[in-house]
Amino acid sequence: MRNKPVLHTVLSPKLLDLYDVKDTVVVIIDVFRATSTIATALYNGAARVIPVDSVDKCIEIGKNTGGITAGERDGKVIPGLAYGNSPAEYPRSFIEGKTLVLTTTNGTKLLHMALNNGASEVVTGSFPNLSSVCDHLLAQEKNVILGCSAWKDRFNLEDALFAGAVIEKVKEHFTIHCDSSLMAADMYALHKNNMSGFIRQTTHWHRLASYGLEKDLEYCISIDLANVLPRYRNGDLIV
Amino acid sequence: MRNKPVLHTVLSPKLLDLYDVKDTVVVIIDVFRATSTIATALYNGAARVIPVDSVDKCIEIGKNTGGITAGERDGKVIPGLAYGNSPAEYPRSFIEGKTLVLTTTNGTKLLHMALNNGASEVVTGSFPNLSSVCDHLLAQEKNVILGCSAWKDRFNLEDALFAGAVIEKVKEHFTIHCDSSLMAADMYALHKNNMSGFIRQTTHWHRLASYGLEKDLEYCISIDLANVLPRYRNGDLIV
Repeated sequence: MRNKPVLHTVLSPKLLDLYDVKDTVVVIIDVFRATSTIATALYNGAARVIPVDSVDKCIEIGKNTGGITAGERDGKVIPGLAYGNSPAEYPRSFIEGKTLVLTTTNGTKLLHMALNNGASEVVTGSFPNLSSVCDHLLAQEKNVILGCSAWKDRFNLEDALFAGAVIEKVKEHFTIHCDSSLMAADMYALHKNNMSGFIRQTTHWHRLASYGLEKDLEYCISIDLANVLPRYRNGDLIV
Repeated sequence: MRNKPVLHTVLSPKLLDLYDVKDTVVVIIDVFRATSTIATALYNGAARVIPVDSVDKCIEIGKNTGGITAGERDGKVIPGLAYGNSPAEYPRSFIEGKTLVLTTTNGTKLLHMALNNGASEVVTGSFPNLSSVCDHLLAQEKNVILGCSAWKDRFNLEDALFAGAVIEKVKEHFTIHCDSSLMAADMYALHKNNMSGFIRQTTHWHRLASYGLEKDLEYCISIDLANVLPRYRNGDLIV
């Protein structure tokens, strides 16, 4: 019998160095809202999404590519950029065939760390593309790291809940000796039938809902509404 | 109305720098087994426990103080030291009035970080002294950090479960906007009536049980069997 590949969950970018990333498929998770928006833009036909970690880079790459620049701070579009971080801003009628240059601090940081540490592949995960992520992990039969982007390196629940949702679907096919994974799976099992109620208790919900983003957040915890697999290739996320 | 003090849970020493430790009471948690053994030795009348992070220091301080040197690696007493890390090794008939110099890597590291970052007080917590910890936090009315020692900086469930047990008892008296605390409280509520069964799923249990330490571990998840409050003062833990 073949050994099953190994799956770990990493709860913060600050903890990534404790794990062996080499030759691993890393799933970048940033539920509120970067990876939900990435899945949505690509599902709606965007040619590619370029994730960047600073406003200056966003403006520069926007100029060079003719792409749409996007980024928010405190719930408002950042001066100098054109659009925000909401998945609702990227319907097919607007984004199809275009390049989206998206400013995302937590998720982009983790993505670059994963690449620098030798990940064999980086994909992005969110509830709107849950099934695509799981199908891919099952098909690859490689070691997996579910990487939570967290909030300024602090643990957050929404990313852990997504990790738990993935684990629920794939666990029979992986060796999982990892307390973070055990916790994530438990938390998802505990709350999956009342995500909309539970998520309102989290710190990130409070922060973002105070900017009037409740509808966005509801979308970001909805499963398979933008069911594609964003893969990282030479600076771009594409499907 | 006075504002309630703030409580945070920190899931790994690597994440401590993200929190404001200054003027805070920090509870060092290392359930398997350092803080359980510390509570037990002091409950049984040890004069003091000196936590050290290396074998060399343990031997040196043991010589200087005439204390009992203790430390394990892979479930066996470390060569050069006299005793192990098991709370069962420190009954009153043996430890009363003596100094215990205890080698503990994860917990001692976190303790020194907390002191260096300006904690106003450092105490140690474990299930055997749960009530003493909670009573103290309620009496102090200061900001609190529940600091999980983790395992080589990786998140572990037993420390998070203890944080959850504390939060369950004190939450009405603190402001808690912290996903780590929310998670810890949920995990404890979910498993508190079957701790003995659930804890057998954790990675640390598997590691330690493979050394024949099951009875030790059962003790370490038992509540209030050594109900004293170890406080750090000038290098010593005393009650």
